[in-house]
Amino acid sequence: MSVLASHDSTLRARLDADLKQVRRLFADELVSDLGCVNELAEHAQRYHGKMLRPMLVLATAMAVQPEVETTDRKHLVAAAVVEMVHMATLVHDDVLDDARMRRQGATINHLRGNEAAVMLGDYLISHAYHLCTSLGSTGVSRMIAHATNTVCEGELLQLTNRHEHGLDETTYFEIIKRKTASLCGACCKVAALLSESEPNVTDALYAYGETLGIAFQIIDDVLDLTGDQDTVGKTLGQDIAKGKLTLPMIHALEAADNAGRRELVNLLELQARGGLSDEQSRENIRRVREILHDGASLGYAREKAASLVQRAKAGLIENLSDTPARAYLLGLADSVVTRRL
Amino acid sequence: MSVLASHDSTLRARLDADLKQVRRLFADELVSDLGCVNELAEHAQRYHGKMLRPMLVLATAMAVQPEVETTDRKHLVAAAVVEMVHMATLVHDDVLDDARMRRQGATINHLRGNEAAVMLGDYLISHAYHLCTSLGSTGVSRMIAHATNTVCEGELLQLTNRHEHGLDETTYFEIIKRKTASLCGACCKVAALLSESEPNVTDALYAYGETLGIAFQIIDDVLDLTGDQDTVGKTLGQDIAKGKLTLPMIHALEAADNAGRRELVNLLELQARGGLSDEQSRENIRRVREILHDGASLGYAREKAASLVQRAKAGLIENLSDTPARAYLLGLADSVVTRRL
Repeated sequence: MSVLASHDSTLRARLDADLKQVRRLFADELVSDLGCVNELAEHAQRYHGKMLRPMLVLATAMAVQPEVETTDRKHLVAAAVVEMVHMATLVHDDVLDDARMRRQGATINHLRGNEAAVMLGDYLISHAYHLCTSLGSTGVSRMIAHATNTVCEGELLQLTNRHEHGLDETTYFEIIKRKTASLCGACCKVAALLSESEPNVTDALYAYGETLGIAFQIIDDVLDLTGDQDTVGKTLGQDIAKGKLTLPMIHALEAADNAGRRELVNLLELQARGGLSDEQSRENIRRVREILHDGASLGYAREKAASLVQRAKAGLIENLSDTPARAYLLGLADSVVTRRL
Repeated sequence: MSVLASHDSTLRARLDADLKQVRRLFADELVSDLGCVNELAEHAQRYHGKMLRPMLVLATAMAVQPEVETTDRKHLVAAAVVEMVHMATLVHDDVLDDARMRRQGATINHLRGNEAAVMLGDYLISHAYHLCTSLGSTGVSRMIAHATNTVCEGELLQLTNRHEHGLDETTYFEIIKRKTASLCGACCKVAALLSESEPNVTDALYAYGETLGIAFQIIDDVLDLTGDQDTVGKTLGQDIAKGKLTLPMIHALEAADNAGRRELVNLLELQARGGLSDEQSRENIRRVREILHDGASLGYAREKAASLVQRAKAGLIENLSDTPARAYLLGLADSVVTRRL
């Protein structure tokens, strides 16, 4: 993430070195005596992307204990755990979305079938809990399990509301708070708990992570509509194809007059039904983008995300002393809305 | 399970009452503030079947602490945890197997689609770990996570060996030891650990559970070939349809002459390819059963299971004092091979 370049070089070097160790802990945890298992697990490791969640753990640890110069092993382990949980959700998400591309490469489901992808996701989540027990903290294990309970609830709420063209903003925010933001909140809270921070600091950090997570998902949804597939590195337009209504669309449907609404719903239904030629599909998506652009719906969603990022930053400034790690976390929040991938 | 009727009535009444509490703990853990989640979770609860795994936990607890007259809450919680883990694997298994029927009713994947089934399985496994943390024992959490790691390895090994007509017995036993027996072993070991049993007793109980689990899976595989669908209550013939080679088939393929082997492989390939009429499919399965029967392959598998049950029982007799609970566990082992569902 470009934010890495713009900060304190000592912090940056420490984070880089820490992330390398996190990737090693991740890889070591997944080793099996079975070749077929290792082969799949190694494939999953190509999905390491921005590593936002491990960075939240590591930078939070640095921000709450600025006097500690070397990251403790427990924080590295916690960072590997949240990355593993996230990776498991990616693998199962790709099954749910029937996605063919992730991080510039083929998805497991596309390459090896849905069955292998379901099992690989299970293997990852199981090892995440297993690795988590090595921390010897029932509180942390419980918080991670609570976060994954909530992620599943968010996914199920989203699934229930597929093709629901009357979806309102409240439900949309409930979905993304649970499916995405709860884990981001847990990243920061777990890091603070492991550093034995005061409850008010721990709560403030949860709120920061959660708010950043909501903003992150809004931008993810905007990028699914507007992004360049080669830059983003995953199949785009999936939300429309899978009947997922996201913030720009909800805004456009609410703002449109009857005729406009009918046109948009018709386009969404055509895309969701499938079986269109590539050309027709591209033309439909182009028209949807045009409507969203003309109705200022994309800008509306981006502004929502930007205002959430401001709120997340304000909470940090209020509760943490001014350190390079705090500055990093503030920059990380900004990068959530400026990112192009 | 009929074994319940044939034993000490005090023990039976206690187990019945305990299982009722286990089902309540199970249901309470899954309650969400979201209606759509509760609806799915309630459907899953129709899948409670023989509750073999909770019974292993409860009866083991009684066997290692015969002086304790009331089951401790921690054992009830552990029993609910292993049932929830098992339920999660059933839900994902049905996705993998494309099964339409389970416990006399429609599967979640058949009723609500693969996507809901994948997420429901994730919700169940997440809550299993969550509930497990309420025991406050890192050792138990770690053992459960280790068991689920192993279950996934078994499933992946099985997946890799689909349609592998040269599958050998060693690999078959490796698959079922991991995918089924590891959780049964963990049930007994967790119960003993929670009762602070001596290591030799804990190990002996793990071995009992694991050996019983292997025998259980062999009989499950035999029933998939020979069972009556209405009695067993789930889609049968799935192993052939999904290209899973099980012990009777491995025996038949190894024992057959060249022509016999060609006929059997041909029948398996026809069934796995799909697209047959119901009549043709029934006729093929009938012929497969005939071959397995003529070659004594079903008997061979049943004998293997019976000899494993004898081994499991001998280990118990050697390591536990003679109590009604031990007698119950011995009977439970016997029932694994005599069962018809």
